[in-house]
Amino acid sequence: MTAAIRTALAANAIRDAVAAQRAWVESLFDRLAAGSRGEPGITRDTYGEGETFAHRLFAEHATAHELRITHDLAANTYATLPGSDPDAPRLLIGSHLDSVPHGGNFDGAAGVLAGLVTIAVLRALGITPRCDVTTMAVRAEESVWFQVSYIGSRSALGTLPEGALEARRIDDGRVLADSIAACGGDPDAIRRGERHLDPAAIRAFLEVHIEQAPSLVESKLPVAICTGVPGNFRYPAAQITGRHDHVGTPRRFRRDAAMAGAELAMVLDRIWEEEEAAGVALAVTFGRFHTDPAVHGLTTVPGAFAFSLDVRAYDQAVLDRVEQRMLAAIREIEASRRVSFELGKRASAAVGPVDPAIANGLEASAGRLGIQTMRLGSPASHDAAAFAAAGVPIAMLFVRNEHGSHNPLEAMEIGDFLDACAVLADWVAAEVA
Amino acid sequence: MTAAIRTALAANAIRDAVAAQRAWVESLFDRLAAGSRGEPGITRDTYGEGETFAHRLFAEHATAHELRITHDLAANTYATLPGSDPDAPRLLIGSHLDSVPHGGNFDGAAGVLAGLVTIAVLRALGITPRCDVTTMAVRAEESVWFQVSYIGSRSALGTLPEGALEARRIDDGRVLADSIAACGGDPDAIRRGERHLDPAAIRAFLEVHIEQAPSLVESKLPVAICTGVPGNFRYPAAQITGRHDHVGTPRRFRRDAAMAGAELAMVLDRIWEEEEAAGVALAVTFGRFHTDPAVHGLTTVPGAFAFSLDVRAYDQAVLDRVEQRMLAAIREIEASRRVSFELGKRASAAVGPVDPAIANGLEASAGRLGIQTMRLGSPASHDAAAFAAAGVPIAMLFVRNEHGSHNPLEAMEIGDFLDACAVLADWVAAEVA
Repeated sequence: MTAAIRTALAANAIRDAVAAQRAWVESLFDRLAAGSRGEPGITRDTYGEGETFAHRLFAEHATAHELRITHDLAANTYATLPGSDPDAPRLLIGSHLDSVPHGGNFDGAAGVLAGLVTIAVLRALGITPRCDVTTMAVRAEESVWFQVSYIGSRSALGTLPEGALEARRIDDGRVLADSIAACGGDPDAIRRGERHLDPAAIRAFLEVHIEQAPSLVESKLPVAICTGVPGNFRYPAAQITGRHDHVGTPRRFRRDAAMAGAELAMVLDRIWEEEEAAGVALAVTFGRFHTDPAVHGLTTVPGAFAFSLDVRAYDQAVLDRVEQRMLAAIREIEASRRVSFELGKRASAAVGPVDPAIANGLEASAGRLGIQTMRLGSPASHDAAAFAAAGVPIAMLFVRNEHGSHNPLEAMEIGDFLDACAVLADWVAAEVA
Repeated sequence: MTAAIRTALAANAIRDAVAAQRAWVESLFDRLAAGSRGEPGITRDTYGEGETFAHRLFAEHATAHELRITHDLAANTYATLPGSDPDAPRLLIGSHLDSVPHGGNFDGAAGVLAGLVTIAVLRALGITPRCDVTTMAVRAEESVWFQVSYIGSRSALGTLPEGALEARRIDDGRVLADSIAACGGDPDAIRRGERHLDPAAIRAFLEVHIEQAPSLVESKLPVAICTGVPGNFRYPAAQITGRHDHVGTPRRFRRDAAMAGAELAMVLDRIWEEEEAAGVALAVTFGRFHTDPAVHGLTTVPGAFAFSLDVRAYDQAVLDRVEQRMLAAIREIEASRRVSFELGKRASAAVGPVDPAIANGLEASAGRLGIQTMRLGSPASHDAAAFAAAGVPIAMLFVRNEHGSHNPLEAMEIGDFLDACAVLADWVAAEVA
């Protein structure tokens, strides 16, 4: 048997083993959706009923498949296939199980199921791994609930910033610490800086995620290999104060807060256009951008304007540069339009660089399996970035998905998902065998 | 006695007669405010409790002063000092008694009281006018309530557009026709096009109004003589539809409705700047300018954006030019940002040119009285414009006022108001004597 034939046989074995998981994968996605409806779509609220249901379902499935279930101080759930060397740095495969309100079934959950599929494939191939292989179901990735990012993964790593535990859920006002405790976690231990995961004891964190913009749809490819997770800076609740005036007020007397907001938006849009023309990837989003519904009207010059801003890029120097230009523009707008900006609380997330050796390994695996891939910068933040920030090697795979994410129309084909699982399992099998 | 001395004596007589009215003027303004509080500020709602209270108070005061009270089919109230020739075209002096929600005490009401003061001065001077001199208390000038402008004055003139009577009040949904009927008017007669006022039988419509931008405050002058009332075009409820997307969505996939709104605002702001630099007076107001509070959020690219727009100018050609440029910009933004605009219902008001002879006469009166004035384009629309559109000669006087109008802080000094009344009374006395 030549080496080429051995490779082909091994690739066939991986493909067959992955294909054999299809039935339970479809069933598990369906049960997950059925238990966390939030019409329209899916609501698995952070440290709430929906997320907790998903963790219970995950644990039940993993227990039935004889994996070892553990939880940590942030109520994250781990399902482990033990390795032959308990001291060898372990492989973590995972993502989050929460969703935005009225989101889709796949954002987050796909990465958790990919971990389960990988473990199932190792078993089907009769591989006892050298190290523990663990699927991690992460809590609280969607920052929309508590306006804090990576709560679950950063708590596990002991890197949750001070004060975060006092954040309140924007819908019901519950304090994060209380919510964690109610789910069986230990907020006091998190507050003391205890950590469940030692970065040095983790070989890598691997995350599969649906794509959140239709780059793969556009390119007609099932899977992409991530080149990096963007860092960001955020102003979740900024305010512009000008003066409410009569609709006929001449220009020289106006202090129009909405025009000031529009001007800032156009300044950032122009910066984005320039950077992109120079080949720099970036994204600028004014998610909330509004006059005050209590007082605005056809015949009133807006004296107040509110906005949220998220700027993300793959390079901290780009973020710094854009933020400086933004702050300079604000000073100019304040002077020329006689308004004042209150940017409010600032949040940020570090850029998450992907481990190049693992990314190359995943590409080689895809090649062996005959699965065509492309390289793709992650548009979004992901738990993997929290691991990267803690010094853990990370890699990510994206699965083709129509209609974006964070909405009920997320549409991932199971065939594409299984392709991503095959790429991952091939690399993991070689790594842990 | 020289002519100069006679003039000085006459001016003194006018000044003294006006000054003698101060006590009841202050008292009537106070009673008006006390009866129409809408904390913060004043609420005299169109065809509602607040406006009706004001009309009742006006009628009581005028009756006590032995003026003839009449009403018309739109429930406007008239207080008349009869002239010696009942067939001579009459002088109308007036303004509206309604206010915006939480507005001030003087926007509108000052013009009605100025009519009463003028009549009181004629009497004090022992003048029996040649023609009827009527103070008109107009209904429903503030378009914020029914989103229709000049309801009272246009109904009186038989020029209310078709369909307007079916408008609903934005707060309680009441139909305009029903509201008019409930206040004693006759909406069916308005619908049939009947009119209470024949433009040919009106010598002039004269309106005193507080200034709505601090031009007089800036110039340290008590009174301005109006050069024209702006016409406008309006889109009270425009919508932009794009697509809600994940915060990380790359630029080429975005259909960001808020950015499209911001771009349109900046286009119109630039047009405004250009026109103003060329000496053309104009005003652009996006009063409502907002993402959808039900779905917007920090991590969502806005797929929907709503706005209202009011553009006003003193020259119809300017309005036409700006609107054409705006529509062209919308087509470009639709193409470049892949969004669609639905401008919704369009409304407009004609430009209201001031009668130059009357304006000159008012200026001459001010000169005789030693009251310094300036010329000033009205920033706002006023009932006078409805009369101008019907062919009635109009003129307006503005009174110095701090803090703009349409807010609880309107601050008109009674001394400045009495100066405007003196200018008006001087001109009227000469006209009707």
